[in-house]
Amino acid sequence: MEREALRALLEQVRRGEVDADAALARLAQLPFVDTPHARVDTHRALRHGLPEVVFGAGKSGEQIAEIAGALRAAGQPVLVTRVAPEEAPALLERLPEADYDAAARLLWMGPAEVAVLGRGTIAVVTAGTADLPVAREAIGVARRFGNKVEAIFDVGVAGVHRLLAATETLREARVVIAVAGMEGALPSVVGGLVDRPVIAVPTSVGYGASFGGLAALLGMLTSCASNVTVVNIDNGFGAAYVATLINRL
Amino acid sequence: MEREALRALLEQVRRGEVDADAALARLAQLPFVDTPHARVDTHRALRHGLPEVVFGAGKSGEQIAEIAGALRAAGQPVLVTRVAPEEAPALLERLPEADYDAAARLLWMGPAEVAVLGRGTIAVVTAGTADLPVAREAIGVARRFGNKVEAIFDVGVAGVHRLLAATETLREARVVIAVAGMEGALPSVVGGLVDRPVIAVPTSVGYGASFGGLAALLGMLTSCASNVTVVNIDNGFGAAYVATLINRL
Amino acid sequence: MEREALRALLEQVRRGEVDADAALARLAQLPFVDTPHARVDTHRALRHGLPEVVFGAGKSGEQIAEIAGALRAAGQPVLVTRVAPEEAPALLERLPEADYDAAARLLWMGPAEVAVLGRGTIAVVTAGTADLPVAREAIGVARRFGNKVEAIFDVGVAGVHRLLAATETLREARVVIAVAGMEGALPSVVGGLVDRPVIAVPTSVGYGASFGGLAALLGMLTSCASNVTVVNIDNGFGAAYVATLINRL
Amino acid sequence: MEREALRALLEQVRRGEVDADAALARLAQLPFVDTPHARVDTHRALRHGLPEVVFGAGKSGEQIAEIAGALRAAGQPVLVTRVAPEEAPALLERLPEADYDAAARLLWMGPAEVAVLGRGTIAVVTAGTADLPVAREAIGVARRFGNKVEAIFDVGVAGVHRLLAATETLREARVVIAVAGMEGALPSVVGGLVDRPVIAVPTSVGYGASFGGLAALLGMLTSCASNVTVVNIDNGFGAAYVATLINRL
Amino acid sequence: MEREALRALLEQVRRGEVDADAALARLAQLPFVDTPHARVDTHRALRHGLPEVVFGAGKSGEQIAEIAGALRAAGQPVLVTRVAPEEAPALLERLPEADYDAAARLLWMGPAEVAVLGRGTIAVVTAGTADLPVAREAIGVARRFGNKVEAIFDVGVAGVHRLLAATETLREARVVIAVAGMEGALPSVVGGLVDRPVIAVPTSVGYGASFGGLAALLGMLTSCASNVTVVNIDNGFGAAYVATLINRL
Amino acid sequence: MEREALRALLEQVRRGEVDADAALARLAQLPFVDTPHARVDTHRALRHGLPEVVFGAGKSGEQIAEIAGALRAAGQPVLVTRVAPEEAPALLERLPEADYDAAARLLWMGPAEVAVLGRGTIAVVTAGTADLPVAREAIGVARRFGNKVEAIFDVGVAGVHRLLAATETLREARVVIAVAGMEGALPSVVGGLVDRPVIAVPTSVGYGASFGGLAALLGMLTSCASNVTVVNIDNGFGAAYVATLINRL
Amino acid sequence: MEREALRALLEQVRRGEVDADAALARLAQLPFVDTPHARVDTHRALRHGLPEVVFGAGKSGEQIAEIAGALRAAGQPVLVTRVAPEEAPALLERLPEADYDAAARLLWMGPAEVAVLGRGTIAVVTAGTADLPVAREAIGVARRFGNKVEAIFDVGVAGVHRLLAATETLREARVVIAVAGMEGALPSVVGGLVDRPVIAVPTSVGYGASFGGLAALLGMLTSCASNVTVVNIDNGFGAAYVATLINRL
Amino acid sequence: MEREALRALLEQVRRGEVDADAALARLAQLPFVDTPHARVDTHRALRHGLPEVVFGAGKSGEQIAEIAGALRAAGQPVLVTRVAPEEAPALLERLPEADYDAAARLLWMGPAEVAVLGRGTIAVVTAGTADLPVAREAIGVARRFGNKVEAIFDVGVAGVHRLLAATETLREARVVIAVAGMEGALPSVVGGLVDRPVIAVPTSVGYGASFGGLAALLGMLTSCASNVTVVNIDNGFGAAYVATLINRL
Repeated sequence: MEREALRALLEQVRRGEVDADAALARLAQLPFVDTPHARVDTHRALRHGLPEVVFGAGKSGEQIAEIAGALRAAGQPVLVTRVAPEEAPALLERLPEADYDAAARLLWMGPAEVAVLGRGTIAVVTAGTADLPVAREAIGVARRFGNKVEAIFDVGVAGVHRLLAATETLREARVVIAVAGMEGALPSVVGGLVDRPVIAVPTSVGYGASFGGLAALLGMLTSCASNVTVVNIDNGFGAAYVATLINRL
Repeated sequence: MEREALRALLEQVRRGEVDADAALARLAQLPFVDTPHARVDTHRALRHGLPEVVFGAGKSGEQIAEIAGALRAAGQPVLVTRVAPEEAPALLERLPEADYDAAARLLWMGPAEVAVLGRGTIAVVTAGTADLPVAREAIGVARRFGNKVEAIFDVGVAGVHRLLAATETLREARVVIAVAGMEGALPSVVGGLVDRPVIAVPTSVGYGASFGGLAALLGMLTSCASNVTVVNIDNGFGAAYVATLINRL
Repeated sequence: MEREALRALLEQVRRGEVDADAALARLAQLPFVDTPHARVDTHRALRHGLPEVVFGAGKSGEQIAEIAGALRAAGQPVLVTRVAPEEAPALLERLPEADYDAAARLLWMGPAEVAVLGRGTIAVVTAGTADLPVAREAIGVARRFGNKVEAIFDVGVAGVHRLLAATETLREARVVIAVAGMEGALPSVVGGLVDRPVIAVPTSVGYGASFGGLAALLGMLTSCASNVTVVNIDNGFGAAYVATLINRL
Repeated sequence: MEREALRALLEQVRRGEVDADAALARLAQLPFVDTPHARVDTHRALRHGLPEVVFGAGKSGEQIAEIAGALRAAGQPVLVTRVAPEEAPALLERLPEADYDAAARLLWMGPAEVAVLGRGTIAVVTAGTADLPVAREAIGVARRFGNKVEAIFDVGVAGVHRLLAATETLREARVVIAVAGMEGALPSVVGGLVDRPVIAVPTSVGYGASFGGLAALLGMLTSCASNVTVVNIDNGFGAAYVATLINRL
Repeated sequence: MEREALRALLEQVRRGEVDADAALARLAQLPFVDTPHARVDTHRALRHGLPEVVFGAGKSGEQIAEIAGALRAAGQPVLVTRVAPEEAPALLERLPEADYDAAARLLWMGPAEVAVLGRGTIAVVTAGTADLPVAREAIGVARRFGNKVEAIFDVGVAGVHRLLAATETLREARVVIAVAGMEGALPSVVGGLVDRPVIAVPTSVGYGASFGGLAALLGMLTSCASNVTVVNIDNGFGAAYVATLINRL
Repeated sequence: MEREALRALLEQVRRGEVDADAALARLAQLPFVDTPHARVDTHRALRHGLPEVVFGAGKSGEQIAEIAGALRAAGQPVLVTRVAPEEAPALLERLPEADYDAAARLLWMGPAEVAVLGRGTIAVVTAGTADLPVAREAIGVARRFGNKVEAIFDVGVAGVHRLLAATETLREARVVIAVAGMEGALPSVVGGLVDRPVIAVPTSVGYGASFGGLAALLGMLTSCASNVTVVNIDNGFGAAYVATLINRL
Repeated sequence: MEREALRALLEQVRRGEVDADAALARLAQLPFVDTPHARVDTHRALRHGLPEVVFGAGKSGEQIAEIAGALRAAGQPVLVTRVAPEEAPALLERLPEADYDAAARLLWMGPAEVAVLGRGTIAVVTAGTADLPVAREAIGVARRFGNKVEAIFDVGVAGVHRLLAATETLREARVVIAVAGMEGALPSVVGGLVDRPVIAVPTSVGYGASFGGLAALLGMLTSCASNVTVVNIDNGFGAAYVATLINRL
Repeated sequence: MEREALRALLEQVRRGEVDADAALARLAQLPFVDTPHARVDTHRALRHGLPEVVFGAGKSGEQIAEIAGALRAAGQPVLVTRVAPEEAPALLERLPEADYDAAARLLWMGPAEVAVLGRGTIAVVTAGTADLPVAREAIGVARRFGNKVEAIFDVGVAGVHRLLAATETLREARVVIAVAGMEGALPSVVGGLVDRPVIAVPTSVGYGASFGGLAALLGMLTSCASNVTVVNIDNGFGAAYVATLINRL
């Protein structure tokens, strides 16, 4: 899109409708002149054909409402991540249109039904119940981004038969998101079961030597399964984002 | 495949051709009874339709030759990674059929031409010349795995115009591998330029506070671009492996 | 100044007005005998021609008021950093003359208008909205220290076109302060765009593998841009202090 | 034993054969007066009914030969660990009686056949071929300590079916030693398959984010299987030592 | 047990009572079809002949009550760990049958008297009073798991005579759990006194350079006593679990 | 003292007044049988001729009162460290005899005046005002332990003249305690000024890259002054304890 | 410069001499089309008016000679850093024009005398003799970049009088580079003596808790002197680069 | 001494023999004008009444010979630490007067017999044989500094009876140096046995989780014995230096 805008500008210059100095100025600003609220990054999302996403953690309800309102006014669906249950009621008062999913800590403003654009299924597989909030964020984001999602919960590697029982579902997915805290071994075992990309999400679940997710993170990075890549600790959103891009290929 | 073998076994049991105890024994061993050399993991690769890969670092020339020979005897192509230039001559003597790529530290035994099975192009983009060995490993593996590869070298973020000049090439790729040491900022900038999955490979290039690739690794994991996932430090092979899986979707 | 005082003392000794023992005693204490409140370090600031700065974090309102009062009584302007919004009202009651800037967490006691002593402009460039408190501290301090400041917000490297659009402003600055959390890549890209010193400020913004700003800190220290130096995590004040010294050269 | 010696001494005191001062002196030294070479710790081993073990790493051949000679002269079998293959020939010249196992880096001086004192089997299970030296140290030590050992090699978690095929063998063991580098996930999966103590040995095998075995170590410490305890990185000897104690219960 | 169920299923297949597809489906799910509440992992415990254990930290009272209720409905005893004193009253209201031990933070639902199944005694030895909560968790769990326990408190290594006074008790135990924070030296000294397995539990007790238990953890992993293995920081439960398995051998 | 008790016991044995078994039992317990409350470690202090010290952090008011009461009942002075100001009032109600020093967070039960037993002066020198609580703990403990103390506050190395002005006082001390957070450089400079032992106390004062006192700790450990030894972060008590021992030599 | 080229291109488009597609293509490549060797980054340096710098570490003599030759052919002076003494002879054979400074590990190809462009003096101050190689790199680079340099060696903070004796020289400098390993306290003391920017260079000199320069790095980042900024460990080049930029202001 | 020189100078000024400017200049340089070789720090040592010490690691034989020669020419005894056995022969050729102690890696130039100036004994106690080089450095330095030394080797805490046997010797010392690698528990146990200062020296002995001495260092810093202070890893020299200062009190 920017490429087309650029070409149009250059045509205007060629036809003498815009002179060099003006072109130079517009050239620099083109990619983001047309948004109502300059602080909101609307471009990447637009380019990717995905709704706007606002990272809610560390933002006040007022800030979230302002940003989300501006985006909605611009006609775009908005997804706010990391909205804690205790912050939700006040936000919902400001944004009555919004839909809140407490388990996933997601706030959604947009059509109730999202068209499925992903070509296959994304499987989200989780080790322990404590990892559920991160897994649900991944699931909620993936669905709002237009994917079919299969959720497989509570299949930690210390009870490997249960994980094996889900092999069929895992193999039918186009891409797998594996969420695990503690030693983070789940993606390695899952990676051996499927021939699809596995996106590993370490979680900060654990205590002591888990060091806030470091143990799981290092474990996933050194996985002996070659089809595993890793995102940041607790980054369910990022995993769903990349899985969406893969699922649209 | 294992599923079919399993079904066949169960049919044999049902028809009384195999009794329960024997079935039980075979059930346990089925997935890998048919390989000539039990120490070699041939199964994952077979399942994934990819050549066998042997991680060469830390193995003696004798060990590599033995494993590669067994695999070749089984009719499979073999790719050995991390073969240092000083180890190559002795290996090539043992394995006269092999082809060695010193820049990528890869040893290949198989057809000179590999059929292109990837549906698009994999772009491999690199920050500095010191990152080249890792980038070349990724490129060499991706090509041997049947992908078209576009290589974009020497486009570090401190000279961002050169990277922007490659935007076209980056956007035409189906998946991008971004290789960088030092601060590891390249995947973030690349991630903002494309709407495809970006696989980030931190390298151990650098000194002092790079702490053997830790700075780059942490930088990539906390990237502000949402389409970035990360593999282990210097793991050009792993990045190419996942990129291949994505490129076949 | 101390040098002159020292010379004067030695002259007094030479003229026999002060004997050796007394001179010895005064020699040791000279640099700071003349302050009303011994606990306050007024010397560095006096020497540097800058207002007094009190680091507010971890000090009680009573302590801050006492120190600031003593300095004001000595006729000096006072700047208190890291005054949290919830602590400000009580402080303002004690120090009715003071001016509080909540976004920058700065409390100022001195002339409403500060003479501009810096020879050029200091540009303060920021990656994300979450980095704003640190950036605003840098801006507020730089202004109270007599500098013209250009603020460029929300130009993270994952949307590099917006940063490029600010190239003009960046290049017109005499020194640049680049504030970023997460992977901290901003100073590297900025460093490539300008031929001025870039002072990088990592922020503790982020989660998981950002490890409280460590990822950004390591990234900035290993920056591939040669014109980047680094201050402590969240140290907007220190960056503004050094930028002021540079801008007066 | 010391207890008995202590009782004997006290009896001597009671009978007036030894006075208080002499008793006091002997009391302090009793546990180790009777060894020919004071620098060698012979007591723990004697107490535990196990042969002497000398940690060979960092000791010169001369030192090893001297210590081992003294112990042999005292009639005890001696086991030297961490004897690198390149150091072995010189040692064997000094200690012609010794038997060297290069794969396990163990040097043995004692009866060719050791009586089996363990009540069951110790299973030693290994993830990758690179972990073999550590596994073989554990196996060699366990055998020299009088245990039956079952070795299960090359059953990494990314190929979990192979591990499952060994379930029978694992379950028949009285105690399991699980050796793994990289992400160190093997003990978690093994721990779920057996209801016996699992001693996990992280290895320094790996690169990049394995950080010399740290990733495996943290993973094993945070294992979701409750029957896992951990020893130091590469400490195959320690694992075999504890497994021996358990196997004698 | 699963083995028997598997054999039975195979017999049914052989007799034609179950066809291959159905068998295949059941094969995958067998190990855990028969629990009322799928999210609860009942299998490992059943297999090990131990009561169910629920890790209470991070779970809401509602979640704990639901899980514990389901397990009790299935006729199993339930042990909930890490129940903070402030959460206990609400839980006890929901689960009137339960018994709460505040010092050990354990909630128990089951017979008041547990049959002693362990063959010997487990000694639990503690360095400082601050380590008591972890030690009491180990003691409480070990007792509910059917072991006789000897508790030895307050025998830190800086007062080694007190520890020596407990030598008798330590040597009579079949397995020792040594709990210590700070420098974590207790297991090394204890390990030298006994010829039994010593399970070391580092605690997060300490400040400054104890780094949340890291100092104790590293100290225990590098213990010069060969009979020491280590569990995660503060993991009193895990130590008791493994000690139970050893004590039943 | 224990030595004398031991000699006495052995004499009793020799005279037949005590038989071997009884002696054995008493031998083990001798060093601490005579305290009223077994959980309190009274021995080290008694041996060292110092009052009892209770580490108050993490203990409830009830626990502190109980321990302190028992010790007082035994006629010993008691010093409780790390008593936060908000916990003091409740404690003082339970222990009306006690004297509380809020700045040092110390609670004292004993004679108002302590006899000076130290042979010289202990100098306590501090870098910043934020380090004062730790410095005051050191000062308070040193005084209660019978030392003359010279306090030198606010002499950070960035204003080195003020530190030099205190050279006289520093050189007159028999031992110096240097307390500093941030970069912890004070002990190095002080160490160069005096020819006495310097005990360095890193504090957790700072932010960002101070990592809770780690920067100061590492700096002090690597000090270029040879007369510096180091205690744990914030351990003002420990520094005063060792300084007392040195000052009594 | 690029700006002018851009303007020229746009004028060509306006005049119809270049059409939109061609302009688009050239637009992307303009900033670096005119260099003879595409792998060499000549732009930043050109823009900054400084000679080309090649980081020699990790490059073969052949690579260095090739790059340097290309740059020399383009008429530019070349500075190669981190050329180890043992590599120099072979390089000097390839590049007979070059001048090698072994103490600074610098290779220079350009005019013997460099015009002084810096407006004042750069002082380079060093703590210990082991820090000299890094200090000499900074000095050599600063001189080749056209600065007057004052070198002050061997003024560690444990002998603070020697540092004070250099105060005059330090205060006459426009910018100070402070090089120190171990605890890295030098920049803090220097920062208190001058009112100029101090660029701190931690070195990897030290052992044990210096952890390869980490102690010095953290110390410098948390310096209590406000006029200190920090570069990477051992990065004498970077410090000289920034000092040059400052000295030209 | 400097104080006297200062007084003399001031008297000269008072008598008009030196004018203010000259005095000013001399004032700055006084503490070290009178050494023949400016790079050698002779002042601290002179002030402390100890021989000069040169840290030999990382210095060439030529450098060591030059420095030592200059010091010897000035009539001072010289002690060079960290002289590796392989470097000694060449050094001894240059410095024929020198005496080399290979076990301690110390080179000594001075009187064969050093007068005993220490008032009591320094006990040096060591855990394992691998810690001996560090212990011997401490012993050698302490003796050359004029102390009587008692060495107690091989008394690791896992054989605590041997350590107890040395209690007498330990208690007779005026100060104790405790050297230990691995978990570094020795100083804690020693600290409980004596009422003297204990200087703990962690060593880099160990593997895996000892992380180059970090485990021992952290253990010693968090010791539960209050009379322990710590020096850098492997810093036997520093421990002996401080012990000497204490022993002269």
